[in-house]
Amino acid sequence: MADSKKWVVMATAQTPTNIAVIKYWGKRDETLILPVNDSISVTLDPSHLCTTTTVAVSPGFEQDRMWLNGKEISLSGGRFQSCLREIRSRACDVEDKEKGIKIEKKDWEKLHVHIASYNNFPTAAGLASSAAGLACLVFSLAKLMNLKENPSQLSAIARQGSGSACRSLFGGFVKWIMGKDENGSDSLAVQLVEEEHWNELVIIIAVVSARQKETSSTSGMRESVETSLLLQHRAKEIVPKRMVKMEEAIKNRDFSSFAQLTCADSNQFHAVCLDTSPPIFYMNDTSHRIISYVEKWNRSEGSPQVAYTFDAGPNAVLIARNRQVAAQLLQRLLFFFPPNSDTDLNSYVLGDKSILHDAGIGDLKDVEALQCPPEITNVPAQKYTGEINNFICTKPGRGPVLLSDESKALLNPESGLPK
Amino acid sequence: MADSKKWVVMATAQTPTNIAVIKYWGKRDETLILPVNDSISVTLDPSHLCTTTTVAVSPGFEQDRMWLNGKEISLSGGRFQSCLREIRSRACDVEDKEKGIKIEKKDWEKLHVHIASYNNFPTAAGLASSAAGLACLVFSLAKLMNLKENPSQLSAIARQGSGSACRSLFGGFVKWIMGKDENGSDSLAVQLVEEEHWNELVIIIAVVSARQKETSSTSGMRESVETSLLLQHRAKEIVPKRMVKMEEAIKNRDFSSFAQLTCADSNQFHAVCLDTSPPIFYMNDTSHRIISYVEKWNRSEGSPQVAYTFDAGPNAVLIARNRQVAAQLLQRLLFFFPPNSDTDLNSYVLGDKSILHDAGIGDLKDVEALQCPPEITNVPAQKYTGEINNFICTKPGRGPVLLSDESKALLNPESGLPK
Repeated sequence: MADSKKWVVMATAQTPTNIAVIKYWGKRDETLILPVNDSISVTLDPSHLCTTTTVAVSPGFEQDRMWLNGKEISLSGGRFQSCLREIRSRACDVEDKEKGIKIEKKDWEKLHVHIASYNNFPTAAGLASSAAGLACLVFSLAKLMNLKENPSQLSAIARQGSGSACRSLFGGFVKWIMGKDENGSDSLAVQLVEEEHWNELVIIIAVVSARQKETSSTSGMRESVETSLLLQHRAKEIVPKRMVKMEEAIKNRDFSSFAQLTCADSNQFHAVCLDTSPPIFYMNDTSHRIISYVEKWNRSEGSPQVAYTFDAGPNAVLIARNRQVAAQLLQRLLFFFPPNSDTDLNSYVLGDKSILHDAGIGDLKDVEALQCPPEITNVPAQKYTGEINNFICTKPGRGPVLLSDESKALLNPESGLPK
Repeated sequence: MADSKKWVVMATAQTPTNIAVIKYWGKRDETLILPVNDSISVTLDPSHLCTTTTVAVSPGFEQDRMWLNGKEISLSGGRFQSCLREIRSRACDVEDKEKGIKIEKKDWEKLHVHIASYNNFPTAAGLASSAAGLACLVFSLAKLMNLKENPSQLSAIARQGSGSACRSLFGGFVKWIMGKDENGSDSLAVQLVEEEHWNELVIIIAVVSARQKETSSTSGMRESVETSLLLQHRAKEIVPKRMVKMEEAIKNRDFSSFAQLTCADSNQFHAVCLDTSPPIFYMNDTSHRIISYVEKWNRSEGSPQVAYTFDAGPNAVLIARNRQVAAQLLQRLLFFFPPNSDTDLNSYVLGDKSILHDAGIGDLKDVEALQCPPEITNVPAQKYTGEINNFICTKPGRGPVLLSDESKALLNPESGLPK
């Protein structure tokens, strides 16, 4: 190790969230986080939804510490510890000749780390913050400690922190292979296609104003495995066939098949939740309304224009086949779910605001002037003001990246404490 | 036939509704109405929920006619016609010596019928009005035309009018055997136990204020059969085992098992609806809230006190293990779902009002004074005023009966037209 002078070595990375289009629901091993079926996700553009994490190491650090969105949190959880242990055991020599620092493989076990993580979206909004967070933790620590593992091998470590985190180590469309080994070594993520493969897609997330507290996905999926009589049938008989079809649809950019499979699989995941004892309800009346509108529109167009998918919460993730459809979708969403009159449109539609521009909407007056969509026959259509917190316009995005610009670091390079 | 003088012969019957505790969802034959699985129901006390039907025949009638709740409706539907045809083909000689009327078997094909039917509950409230209605039609016509068939044989005719109608031909707990024959002859209902067998049970129906139009059960189950990948697994693998357990629970009056099976099967039926493409939502946020309260209460008591079940709509049917529990249940329901301030308690809690008395509630002030149930820990608990239209307190009840008191008839004995 270098001299005892209190140097700090840091790495900062940015990692995307992902949303599953073939759902992961149910573990066959709770500790290793091994799933009962394969799953597929699309990575979301980190410009709009991502976690940034800075990890630092210094002989001056007295213990492992972590800050999430500026607030210190405990690292004592088994999942954090699993990730830290797995990464430390694979750490390699690191040399910074400029600073005159050399850390040898054997030193890593003794060195403590500081971790600062920041989500550019609300943590509690049910937008897979733990997936992005754990993936970013693993990716940034792997960079700091000079791991030789490839992204798939890193995904198997991230998986032990949060199952769906393994899918956040790649951009584009990602497959989590459930694997067979008891030790979980073959339960990892692989990239199906890069984000550029299907770059017409536009994604709009409707963040639903939820009143009720939700069942955590960890306890929810445990209860489903224990009590749902439909879950095993889904995992063993239905998902394997759907995986084949979904991979094909993605490779061929076959939006009709993609949308049909995405919607059906989201609904089936929520069906399994409902078949759990006691039943789990993640979707609420607002979620149901969004589904009904999308289904009606898709039917009236003769082929799917928009796919919907819902994770363990009421928020809708809507995938439009192209920008033009996305603009029409946003018009519809704003027609049915206008903001409260005291809401600024700029804080109601977030992310890629060019979709708002494409939709011809500049201010709240434009929202009020929106016409009822032609597929709605029972006029006057009911509007549901206030049921949506905000919309986020985004698209498929890239995988994790290292940020070399030190000004982006969340920890002070001298003290190793949050800036 | 008797002379051409325009005599009228009538019969009036009263038939209960029923609520399934093992659900019927999916037909293997649309025309004959043959189900994909067995089902079990409890018959509801006709004092609170029933259909009364008067059928009349006269050489003076020029066509078959029907009035529902005083309004003439068309009898041209295939299902009405199936029932009428099946009953006419089994009609026997009828002689009324007092009136000097004799109708021979062969005459029935030429005679037209008048039918008047009345539900003592809202037809559109999703309370199985078609089940009671078709069962009553078949039962009263069978009496009028002197059919020799037993109730199970009549149930196979009622089944062709509305599947679940076959279960309304008995009181107590009733099993609809799906049968094997292609012609449907063995798809019929049998009584499992009489209503007196388990007379501690109390049933409270929460009629939920629904805003959205629902998918009819006929088209809903067709779409489930065509698109749900879970339905066949449920029908073939899960329901047969549940039937055995449910029959045992009913025979042993084992409320814990009964409640567990009833709730799980209701949830699984709705899970299959959700797994349908496009998905079908019968339950809404109010339904979900009721389930959550019941589940929480049951857990806090250590064993189930109340079972819930939902048909093709948002209304909750809650089965309490005894009167004491029912009074506590009603207190809880009124605490969470108080009536609007302009609602009369007397029209908010219908049916057997002695439960209201047991609950110590005489007026709206008593409702306001209700304490938050002890199992609710996140105080102050949210209340949902206006989400419930009304509650109906009832219990398991008897099967169809003939009403010999002519003053109860809905048709004029001279004209054969509605009174």
